[in-house]
Amino acid sequence: MKAAILGTTGYTGMVLSRILADHSEVTEVLPGSSSQAGEKLEVVDPGLGTALSEKSRNTGGKLLSVEQIVREKPDVVFSALPHLTSAEVCAPFFGTSVVVDLSADFRIRDAGLFRKAYKEEPPRPELLEKAVYGLCEIYRSEIKRSDLIANPGCYPTATLLPVLPLARAGAIRGRVLVNALSGISGAGRKTSANYLYVERDENSGAYNPGSTHRHHAEMAEQIHRADRALDLLFTPHLVPLSRGMAATIAVELVKELDDAAIEKIYRDAYDGCPFVRITPGRIPQTKDVLASNRCDLSWHREGGILMLFSVIDNLGKGASGQAVQNMNIRFGFPETSGLRTYGEL
Amino acid sequence: MKAAILGTTGYTGMVLSRILADHSEVTEVLPGSSSQAGEKLEVVDPGLGTALSEKSRNTGGKLLSVEQIVREKPDVVFSALPHLTSAEVCAPFFGTSVVVDLSADFRIRDAGLFRKAYKEEPPRPELLEKAVYGLCEIYRSEIKRSDLIANPGCYPTATLLPVLPLARAGAIRGRVLVNALSGISGAGRKTSANYLYVERDENSGAYNPGSTHRHHAEMAEQIHRADRALDLLFTPHLVPLSRGMAATIAVELVKELDDAAIEKIYRDAYDGCPFVRITPGRIPQTKDVLASNRCDLSWHREGGILMLFSVIDNLGKGASGQAVQNMNIRFGFPETSGLRTYGEL
Amino acid sequence: MKAAILGTTGYTGMVLSRILADHSEVTEVLPGSSSQAGEKLEVVDPGLGTALSEKSRNTGGKLLSVEQIVREKPDVVFSALPHLTSAEVCAPFFGTSVVVDLSADFRIRDAGLFRKAYKEEPPRPELLEKAVYGLCEIYRSEIKRSDLIANPGCYPTATLLPVLPLARAGAIRGRVLVNALSGISGAGRKTSANYLYVERDENSGAYNPGSTHRHHAEMAEQIHRADRALDLLFTPHLVPLSRGMAATIAVELVKELDDAAIEKIYRDAYDGCPFVRITPGRIPQTKDVLASNRCDLSWHREGGILMLFSVIDNLGKGASGQAVQNMNIRFGFPETSGLRTYGEL
Amino acid sequence: MKAAILGTTGYTGMVLSRILADHSEVTEVLPGSSSQAGEKLEVVDPGLGTALSEKSRNTGGKLLSVEQIVREKPDVVFSALPHLTSAEVCAPFFGTSVVVDLSADFRIRDAGLFRKAYKEEPPRPELLEKAVYGLCEIYRSEIKRSDLIANPGCYPTATLLPVLPLARAGAIRGRVLVNALSGISGAGRKTSANYLYVERDENSGAYNPGSTHRHHAEMAEQIHRADRALDLLFTPHLVPLSRGMAATIAVELVKELDDAAIEKIYRDAYDGCPFVRITPGRIPQTKDVLASNRCDLSWHREGGILMLFSVIDNLGKGASGQAVQNMNIRFGFPETSGLRTYGEL
Repeated sequence: MKAAILGTTGYTGMVLSRILADHSEVTEVLPGSSSQAGEKLEVVDPGLGTALSEKSRNTGGKLLSVEQIVREKPDVVFSALPHLTSAEVCAPFFGTSVVVDLSADFRIRDAGLFRKAYKEEPPRPELLEKAVYGLCEIYRSEIKRSDLIANPGCYPTATLLPVLPLARAGAIRGRVLVNALSGISGAGRKTSANYLYVERDENSGAYNPGSTHRHHAEMAEQIHRADRALDLLFTPHLVPLSRGMAATIAVELVKELDDAAIEKIYRDAYDGCPFVRITPGRIPQTKDVLASNRCDLSWHREGGILMLFSVIDNLGKGASGQAVQNMNIRFGFPETSGLRTYGEL
Repeated sequence: MKAAILGTTGYTGMVLSRILADHSEVTEVLPGSSSQAGEKLEVVDPGLGTALSEKSRNTGGKLLSVEQIVREKPDVVFSALPHLTSAEVCAPFFGTSVVVDLSADFRIRDAGLFRKAYKEEPPRPELLEKAVYGLCEIYRSEIKRSDLIANPGCYPTATLLPVLPLARAGAIRGRVLVNALSGISGAGRKTSANYLYVERDENSGAYNPGSTHRHHAEMAEQIHRADRALDLLFTPHLVPLSRGMAATIAVELVKELDDAAIEKIYRDAYDGCPFVRITPGRIPQTKDVLASNRCDLSWHREGGILMLFSVIDNLGKGASGQAVQNMNIRFGFPETSGLRTYGEL
Repeated sequence: MKAAILGTTGYTGMVLSRILADHSEVTEVLPGSSSQAGEKLEVVDPGLGTALSEKSRNTGGKLLSVEQIVREKPDVVFSALPHLTSAEVCAPFFGTSVVVDLSADFRIRDAGLFRKAYKEEPPRPELLEKAVYGLCEIYRSEIKRSDLIANPGCYPTATLLPVLPLARAGAIRGRVLVNALSGISGAGRKTSANYLYVERDENSGAYNPGSTHRHHAEMAEQIHRADRALDLLFTPHLVPLSRGMAATIAVELVKELDDAAIEKIYRDAYDGCPFVRITPGRIPQTKDVLASNRCDLSWHREGGILMLFSVIDNLGKGASGQAVQNMNIRFGFPETSGLRTYGEL
Repeated sequence: MKAAILGTTGYTGMVLSRILADHSEVTEVLPGSSSQAGEKLEVVDPGLGTALSEKSRNTGGKLLSVEQIVREKPDVVFSALPHLTSAEVCAPFFGTSVVVDLSADFRIRDAGLFRKAYKEEPPRPELLEKAVYGLCEIYRSEIKRSDLIANPGCYPTATLLPVLPLARAGAIRGRVLVNALSGISGAGRKTSANYLYVERDENSGAYNPGSTHRHHAEMAEQIHRADRALDLLFTPHLVPLSRGMAATIAVELVKELDDAAIEKIYRDAYDGCPFVRITPGRIPQTKDVLASNRCDLSWHREGGILMLFSVIDNLGKGASGQAVQNMNIRFGFPETSGLRTYGEL
């Protein structure tokens, strides 16, 4: 099993390297980088050290260009490239490799929504039909059959896992009001002043509220697939974490449901899912799932309002972890291969 | 002008010491502590150093017992003691000193609400009539005439400043949905495992949602004074900041209001208020107001929903800063005396 | 293979749980706790979740008392109990289980040194002869044969790995001057005001300098075993990390050595050691080894002085990771079983 | 009194703005910026808010170009520009304004040392004779008479304050071994990946050791002025603080000195200095002096070795605070005007 990473030197790429180092089914890893091809991976990523040396020894432990990777014919390609770049760079792999695209390029079916969010035409719209939205617990059976998996964004993952079971059950109505907190790695490895240590340390606040955040379109489309009548209002916040995401979501119940009924909806939805943990009576915290692929979720009822709480690691279940989970499902590996179910201290 | 602090060694007491050191009208400070009376203040609080030495030299720069403070007949007493303790310890000062009580003991008029929040009878209910709720920008004229000022909680301050002008203007209806983020100092200097560095670092999440947080009662009472018909749903979150608080609030507009109309409501409400800064078009961040007495506020319209954003320093405008602002108003000092209008870097 | 943990709810115990969950040779885990016996582990440690459920199902996934663990006859016992308690509580296991003691109780041979550091008589001095100092890379052959392994402290591990090869080679003389930085978890899960988030955030500084820190005795004894003539001067510092330790060490060269000669000393000493990484020309940083069992080390020559740099995770190679490495060596498992060679992002 | 800031949008410029807002003797502030001239200062620096509006109303509260500032004929110019740029940009002010230069351009007398550290010729060497090294407590009388004050670096300030009194007293010999920890703002507002939140959070380690750090030359020159025979070995470290610096320094005593004798040396040296606080028996921590202009210092004796400990805020006493202290001294203002003697919580 040969896995390639496009964009190995960004944060999602770095986490992919670590997960694949631990993955017993992946025997060869091809780490790609357009800007640093030819460099030794262990030098470029000192934290990784030699953990991938064995699995990348065929290519000298070096970062590879896309062209080199194409020639290696990988079984699976993880693209950790930016949106609007990813679809183009992945083109040579469509048809020969399974592509798990961590960018937004294939996440949104509605071209209008895509245009509104990304200010460009959707790249390769002809492939959208073949792409599956890689929210593993929701689209597991489609993922098994697809060669183009659009890995969800972090905010959508943290939001949809608690919302979709209720929406599918017809248990909620009106507005889905999402407030979410994200660690700084969610912005990627961008050298913008806004993400400097001194600017984010001891700092917190909302940004891009309502439909001004790009993930709004992605979430809205998924929520509407479950229940056309629901509205979405989303406000993201940056908080001083490297990794971690917490969503607090207010929804209105269609009729009174007691805690047991709510728990049953979730248990039914996530039965046999190793990475979703339902914690009635305890509000999950981001450190519970640090560096893991887990999503913990819980709720609080107050009158006819239900508050939902979920946490993920934005680089784990919110990006690279889920990408590997998608590979596991697609290739029939044990779903937990290479992935942690516990949060680091 | 002689000012006493009860509870000097907690976080709000420590910040009071620093503000009073800078205050040009306060010539003498009496730092009180029941547990460490007799100790040198500069030893107990090394960060303060000798900044209060001059103003506390009459009593040898030492922490004083309540009895010693009573004998000194302070003009103003700041009580930074815990709720249900504060009212009792302050008793000897009622009638002789102006008392600014940073605890919850006199914040809530409705005894039933108090009981629900604090699981005890309100202490000294006979004084409630005389107490004023010390949200400076809202109750300035009452504060000028009162000898018992109940300094607001941090969450209520961050919530009420953006909500009350709209509520008073009859511009909103239905549910006021508050999601707020707090720095860890909001919990006080409690040696609980939950507030250890390792447990809060790289950690974030909601706690005590809905009406289970004590500040809910305080906020609800104030919102209902402005508009009986509004509902409140409040969810606090802990984020890894020492100091800082951000509130994100969703309200429903009664009728369509454009940005200019909203700005006008706020400008009218806070005209001449040195510590409220309206920042149309920019969502404020907690570091903007770090170690200051400022509240920055802004909004985002989305359909008929208005998202409100406010930030304060929970130990500044959310506690000790507002306490000194209350003293300034009550004694006719310039309102900014001893208080910062800028946030620290 | 049955492994028990005494003191599962402290930080080192929590990390042990996680490592053992990943360990392919350990099929059963007995999590002990004197204070919370009977509680469900996944409730007490929500971050761990159900990761140990399979391996602890024989005892219902619950925390066990020491008495219960004794009855289970574990193959190996990890004691994460405090010093002066650990030796006593471990007593029933001596002779029947391999004991890896993470406390200081069996680390120091010289009773006088122990007394000076811990202000008490060494407990169970009769066992000291049988105990081996579990610094894996240095005492591997002794560890293979021992049933009582005294797992080293974090500061000693970070210091001795770069110092001992030079000391054994006779390459240095005079004073070994160690300045080390530690994350806050090094203090354990103590609910002292000094370790509260607000007191450690944005705070750094030295503490217990020179021979006033307990780890001084442990380090000094080991350095003197390698070269009687060396002096040790050690200053620890607390910095705002949850996990991580960096040592910066100045030593005087006996004669001029070029970089190649120094590198050779280290390569010879750590040939075949999967957890020591020599990084000539790059000063390692704590995040390189976060949540791993790795020690990275490097140096800088300046005149006749050699500056040594090493980093570990104080809960990884500095505690629980090394404890499992010791088990791996003792039981003949692959040395890296259950342990990471990469640092988390 | 008119004060200009060159480089208002960097971290030292931002702190200067805040200090000057509080300074009772400075009635007008001219905030300069080459890149953002014409922008409103309160928009560019939202944390500052309107705190400087009054003092900058003559020029519309806007950032000014150097040319505009020249026309305003400021009494004092603070240059917070990068080294090798600062001397050139300040040229029009020499002779008409007092210049406090926070860059390194005039700190080093020895042109060879400058060249080695900054890889360029010293700019404007003809002015070096007139420049005074602005370490206030050491060169107070020279500062009073100088129109060109070279404000010291942060590492030199933290190192020289504890070292120089001992060196001048002839109490130490041999090597001065400095290990210092710095907050991330010490690197300035550089958008380099190395200073991103995610790269520095949970990360610590040494960098540029020995004479490879630029501040080495500056420190060495000052130490040699006091005692030609002393050697310097310096290792800086980055730790995850926004602001703060701690130095731990090992020196060898010429003869045995007891604690009283050491304390006397420091008391004599810093008698009447409001910003140096000697704390025998307590090792100072960076948070003690956060956002203040204070340096706290202490020591520990161990055999013939003396460990010195000092802390400053790298942006306070280590940069902008000391710059204003220099202005205060030069213009005969009270030395503490605008500056804090307490650390923020």
